[in-house]
Amino acid sequence: MSNKHTIHSQKHHFGWDNSIDPVLTVAPGDSVEFGTIDASGGQINRNSSVQDVKNLDFERVNPVTGPVIIDGAKPGDTLKITIESFSPSGWGWTAIIPGFGLLSDQFKEPNLHIWSYDKEKLTPCAYGPGGKVPIKPFCGTIGVAPAELGSHSIVPPRRVGGNMDIRDLSSGTVLYLPVEVNGAMFSVGDTHAAQGDGEVCGTAIESQMDLVLNFEIIKDNKLKFPRFDTSGPVSRHLDEKGYHVTTGIGYDLMVSAKQAVTSMIDLITSVHGINASEAYMLCSVCADLRISEIVDQPNWVVSLYFPKIVFE
Amino acid sequence: MSNKHTIHSQKHHFGWDNSIDPVLTVAPGDSVEFGTIDASGGQINRNSSVQDVKNLDFERVNPVTGPVIIDGAKPGDTLKITIESFSPSGWGWTAIIPGFGLLSDQFKEPNLHIWSYDKEKLTPCAYGPGGKVPIKPFCGTIGVAPAELGSHSIVPPRRVGGNMDIRDLSSGTVLYLPVEVNGAMFSVGDTHAAQGDGEVCGTAIESQMDLVLNFEIIKDNKLKFPRFDTSGPVSRHLDEKGYHVTTGIGYDLMVSAKQAVTSMIDLITSVHGINASEAYMLCSVCADLRISEIVDQPNWVVSLYFPKIVFE
Repeated sequence: MSNKHTIHSQKHHFGWDNSIDPVLTVAPGDSVEFGTIDASGGQINRNSSVQDVKNLDFERVNPVTGPVIIDGAKPGDTLKITIESFSPSGWGWTAIIPGFGLLSDQFKEPNLHIWSYDKEKLTPCAYGPGGKVPIKPFCGTIGVAPAELGSHSIVPPRRVGGNMDIRDLSSGTVLYLPVEVNGAMFSVGDTHAAQGDGEVCGTAIESQMDLVLNFEIIKDNKLKFPRFDTSGPVSRHLDEKGYHVTTGIGYDLMVSAKQAVTSMIDLITSVHGINASEAYMLCSVCADLRISEIVDQPNWVVSLYFPKIVFE
Repeated sequence: MSNKHTIHSQKHHFGWDNSIDPVLTVAPGDSVEFGTIDASGGQINRNSSVQDVKNLDFERVNPVTGPVIIDGAKPGDTLKITIESFSPSGWGWTAIIPGFGLLSDQFKEPNLHIWSYDKEKLTPCAYGPGGKVPIKPFCGTIGVAPAELGSHSIVPPRRVGGNMDIRDLSSGTVLYLPVEVNGAMFSVGDTHAAQGDGEVCGTAIESQMDLVLNFEIIKDNKLKFPRFDTSGPVSRHLDEKGYHVTTGIGYDLMVSAKQAVTSMIDLITSVHGINASEAYMLCSVCADLRISEIVDQPNWVVSLYFPKIVFE
C-alpha cells in the first residue's frame, strides 16, 4: 500500500547539504505533493517592476522544498521519480539579471516581464512586446543531496541533479537520479511554466506551482549522471508551424551557442520590431539550443530553433 | 520565367576553392536538379565489408556537385536556397571510421552497417543488430565558396556553410547562406537518409540521392552565419513514443556531450543486447544532442534524446 503525503512550501532550504534535517520520510512507492516557492523566493510578485530585479537578494534565490528521506535508499542506488502532475499558479516572471545569462556581456541592464496565463487550459500565453508562448510546466530544480559534506550552491546542477533546468522534466516524465547518501535526501523547486532548451537569458517563465511526485528505489543500479524517459513527444506544443533557425559555427561550442542566440535576437528585432532585450527573454522561454554537428573537425554547429507559432 | 537545369554527379569537386571552374550558370529563380555521389566517393557500395572502411582513401571523401554560378550574386548578398525534393537511392551506409567521431578515443575499431530502405515510402528502416530507424532525407554538405583564396578542406563547415550536417536541411526547408564571392559558387553533396543532431559517430545513413534546389538572391542582406526556416515540425517522424534521455553535466559542453552519448550507449547495450559499437552507430543516425541548460554557472547540461520508437 502506498501513501500520499504533503509538504508545505514553508519547509524549504537554500543550498544542498546532507546535514539539513529532513522534513518527511516516505516509503518507496509513496507520492508526495510539494508546495514550492518561485525562484526569487517570493521577492518578485505580480506587481513587481524592474526595480525588484535590481534589489534581488541572492541569498534568497532558488529555494527548494525538502529534504525528503526515501526510506531504504543507499549510496549506489538509483532514485526513480515519476513526475505526476503540476498545479500552476497562473502567473510568472522572466528577468534579465545583470551578470547572469548566456549573453551577460551584451545585456547589462535588468529587465522584467510579468506573465499571466490560463492555469486550467494552459493556452499559449501573450508576451507583452509581441507573440504568444506555448506553456509546458516543469520543475527546474530537482535533486538529491551530494555525498560531499558542507553546503553547496543551489545554482549549478551536479551529478545528483539539482538546477538542471531541463524543459522536459514535465508531467509524465520519469527521472532517474544517482543516490549518494542514505535516504537520498530529495528536494524540488524552481518550477517553470515554459522554457526553451538552454534557458539562454538565465530565467524561464518562473512560476510558482505545486507538484506531485512518486518515488521508487532501484537497488544497486549505479548511474553516472541523471537520465530520464519522457512519456511521449516533447515539442508538439510548439512545433506545428516549424522553426526559424540560426546557427553558430566554430571550434568552441559555447562561442557558437552565443553566436546562434545573437543572430536570432537580430532576426527577431528586425522582423518583429521588439527590442533586443525583449527578444533575448523571448528566446529563453521558447527557443531550443541544439548541437547539430559535433564531429566535423575542427568546427561544430550549434543551432537555435525558434518556434514560428509564437508570432503566427 | 524560371528554368530547370540538371547537373550530373560526374561534375563534382573536393575541397572549397573559388578558383574552380563553374559547371553551370543559372539565373535567380531557377531550379537545378543535382546528381550527387555518396560521402565515400563511391568507395563503399551495397556489398562492402568493414575492410572497405579500413581502406578508405580520404582524398576521395565528401565530393560535392558544382560549383554553380548564381548570376548577379555579390559578396554581401544572401543566397536563398529552397530545398525542393530528394530522390533517394534506397540504400546507405553507416561507419565507424578510426580517428573520426565524438568518441574516437573509445571506439578505435572500424565498423560498417549497410542499410536498405524503401525509397518510395521512406518507412522506418531495419537496423540489423536491432531496432528500426525513421528516415528523413537531407543534404549534409551545402555551401558556397569562401572569399579566402586556395583550397579549403571539405570536412569542417564554415561561415559560408559546407559540411554542416544539420538534419533539418530536408525537403521544404529554406536555407540562407552569406555570399562571399561573385556568383556565390554553390555546391552540394553528402546526402543522408537519416541522422540525429550531432552525428555523433561521424557518419549518418550516408545515402546517395539526387535533389532539386531553387536559388534566389537577397541583395545587401549580410548574414553572420547560415540560417534556415523549416516548413513544419522537424521531429514528428520519430517523436511519437517519446524519448530515453541521458545527460552530461559539467563546465565543458564537449565533455558533457561525450558523457551523455557514453551513458546512452551503456543504456542501449544493457537493455537491448546490441554491442557498444552498434549502439554508437545507432545513436548517430537517430538520437539528438541538445543543450538543456547553459546558464547555471559553472555547470551546463547536455542531453542526448534517443527516440523510443526505434525499439517499439
